Amino acid sequence: MTNINVTQDLSQIVKNSKQASYKLASVTKELKSKALLAIANNIEKNKESILKENQKDLDNAKKMIEDGRLTRALYNRLKLDDEKIKVMVQGIKDVSNLEDPVNKIEWAIELDKDLKLYRVSCPLGVIGVIFESRPDVIPQVAALAVKSSNAVILKGGSEADKSNEILIRIINEALDEIREFPKNSITLIKTRYEVQKMLELDKYIDLIIPRGSNDLVKYIQSNTKIPVLGHADGICHVYIDKDADLNKATKITIDSKIQYPSACNAVETVLIHEDISTNYIKTLLNEFKKNNVTIKGDEHVSSIVQDIEKATEEDWKTEYTDKIISIKTVKDINEAIDHVNNYGSGHTDTIITENKENADLFLSLVDSAGVYHNASTRFADGFRYGLGAEVGISTNKTHARGPVGLEGLVIYKYKLYGNGQAAADYSGEKAKEYTHRVLKK
Amino acid sequence: MTNINVTQDLSQIVKNSKQASYKLASVTKELKSKALLAIANNIEKNKESILKENQKDLDNAKKMIEDGRLTRALYNRLKLDDEKIKVMVQGIKDVSNLEDPVNKIEWAIELDKDLKLYRVSCPLGVIGVIFESRPDVIPQVAALAVKSSNAVILKGGSEADKSNEILIRIINEALDEIREFPKNSITLIKTRYEVQKMLELDKYIDLIIPRGSNDLVKYIQSNTKIPVLGHADGICHVYIDKDADLNKATKITIDSKIQYPSACNAVETVLIHEDISTNYIKTLLNEFKKNNVTIKGDEHVSSIVQDIEKATEEDWKTEYTDKIISIKTVKDINEAIDHVNNYGSGHTDTIITENKENADLFLSLVDSAGVYHNASTRFADGFRYGLGAEVGISTNKTHARGPVGLEGLVIYKYKLYGNGQAAADYSGEKAKEYTHRVLKK
Repeated sequence: MTNINVTQDLSQIVKNSKQASYKLASVTKELKSKALLAIANNIEKNKESILKENQKDLDNAKKMIEDGRLTRALYNRLKLDDEKIKVMVQGIKDVSNLEDPVNKIEWAIELDKDLKLYRVSCPLGVIGVIFESRPDVIPQVAALAVKSSNAVILKGGSEADKSNEILIRIINEALDEIREFPKNSITLIKTRYEVQKMLELDKYIDLIIPRGSNDLVKYIQSNTKIPVLGHADGICHVYIDKDADLNKATKITIDSKIQYPSACNAVETVLIHEDISTNYIKTLLNEFKKNNVTIKGDEHVSSIVQDIEKATEEDWKTEYTDKIISIKTVKDINEAIDHVNNYGSGHTDTIITENKENADLFLSLVDSAGVYHNASTRFADGFRYGLGAEVGISTNKTHARGPVGLEGLVIYKYKLYGNGQAAADYSGEKAKEYTHRVLKK
Repeated sequence: MTNINVTQDLSQIVKNSKQASYKLASVTKELKSKALLAIANNIEKNKESILKENQKDLDNAKKMIEDGRLTRALYNRLKLDDEKIKVMVQGIKDVSNLEDPVNKIEWAIELDKDLKLYRVSCPLGVIGVIFESRPDVIPQVAALAVKSSNAVILKGGSEADKSNEILIRIINEALDEIREFPKNSITLIKTRYEVQKMLELDKYIDLIIPRGSNDLVKYIQSNTKIPVLGHADGICHVYIDKDADLNKATKITIDSKIQYPSACNAVETVLIHEDISTNYIKTLLNEFKKNNVTIKGDEHVSSIVQDIEKATEEDWKTEYTDKIISIKTVKDINEAIDHVNNYGSGHTDTIITENKENADLFLSLVDSAGVYHNASTRFADGFRYGLGAEVGISTNKTHARGPVGLEGLVIYKYKLYGNGQAAADYSGEKAKEYTHRVLKK
């Protein structure tokens, strides 16, 4: 239980993680696989103990529900069962089977004979992951960290304390059995105070991944100099173009809203070209109503169907994360693109059209992580994208964007192999010339 | 002269840049080449006017040197001449000839029949570049921005005001001639107040690149939520291993220090294995002395040669940017690696050894952008690396690391082309299966 001593000074915990991260950089693919299988097996072996600890959290959570401090939805996310543990274990094995993201030669060039440069993928170092409620995040993140050779510091929601503690203990028990695996690679911290302190330690922590509410993400983004991978808002749009196939429009718009309304990739605002008939708008609104979606329409839409709410400026900026949709009429595709770029959150936006030129224009000019043509916004997901694993969805413009797989947890370093060369050999009157022969593109 | 009206409200300037950036995303490769050649030609055509305006800055600078407000070195960097303008013009043409960094398909996968996902490189958006003194930064950065389809806001040192203004005017005159090229793509701001305001506008600016003193970079890193690409310190190391070829050791160590002592990739601390003979240490120190390098040695080194300064803890953390070197004895390669990771700045570090295993260990465990074997730290440079252009050198752990070429100014977006698919089609009892057939790796 060496790694869950929360009375340790936080800065010492973080320094230990940094030391571990240096050692992790040279851990072999084989050792990582061994570690992942050991973790998976140890979780399977200790299933009963995990469920027992989880039950303590659940008992406590029941009281919190009675007091109104916890929602039923959070309770359900907190609850582990046989099936969830099976999924956990399988998830770790799946990560183990992914391609090793480190030590890949991305690019190589010969600068001169016996002077060769390699750009090689390598781990980031120390990653801080801050999440809420779901204890199954721990084995998932631990597996991604091991696979990408990063050290990780986890902070879960306090309502899952017992579950988180036993999971970390079981994971570290498994890792401790493997003598060569660096100690302090996976650490749990438990207090908000420690999170605050952690956000200040940009010298030691290389990336923060917050997984939780918009408020959590915004708080973290505003309170650290460490790069943050994630997204606060998911204000996604469906634009129904003049040349839309209206059957596709209905199917995609409804799916984008109702398939999972609280997801970040659910649509919040539908933009409709002004030439779309009032008849079709009635049909679409009717479909929303059948699915118990509250509709907020602009002037034009409200004039077609009387019994809907009026949308205000505020609606265009709102992620409802609920069965609510706002609808706006636009005079052309340019207004649609401008609206998405001004009010959207750069997450995922789709155009419904049979006009190839308009599709290309929308996909080119909309500045979002995902730009779709005739497909539901709900496809924005690492597993659906075939990435094998998902670290999170990023609306950043640097490093990693959209659903992020293991590649978001690595960077590269330049390795230069020489034979005694000095830069002075290549300058001045008798300068040697660089060959710059690309070895790998 | 529409783009240099500094009395405009800064937030309006930045919003205009953002609007330009959306349009730039769809500018063709051909139009960009046309724009770059127009800029190059217009600079060539207006050479005399540029030199005339530059002379005004130089006249002013002379007074500043007398007052002690400007150094001779800065004066030399401020001064333009025929040769420098020739290099400017050639530089723009060279950038024009580089491969287009945007609209490259990086990865593609079929999710299902008629549902294809493409990861396509695209510009970041708006880039802020803050630099000191050298007016030749303007055409260089303008060329890189045009080539990568980004809008750019430039802030130069006030001592180069006249030169910067005319260069921006000439560049924008050339761009204005090309009707389809988006207005407000390249903008100059001039006051520190505007820089402060700019650093707050993280909603509109996607990347800041500071090019100047350590203090400038540190100030910017500490005062913005916008990602900053660059490096504050360049504390580089040469480690002379037990198994070093001592001829190589001398050549590389001396080159790393004296080839250009004020460069960020110059060495500051030499680490020497304790088994290296006192005879060799004397030889090395002698070479430093011959080159007028001030030596600061640890206990052991100071006991060998009496007339050198004692190094303190502070020395291991110092970038001298001058002909000063600190020397420390280490008991083995592990201590060398630990020292570099603890005191270094993650820039560039080299090991001198004939022992392949030690070289691999050093290159694997040292957490720096550049890790070298038997080569001078001075090779850390975009042009030497064959990148074709250099945006700056980054010690960041995310997005771009080491010498950064055009690829540091782009990110990617996911384009999904469907045919009416909903996510619900792929879940539940009658779920269709994803094919996940990789189209481009």
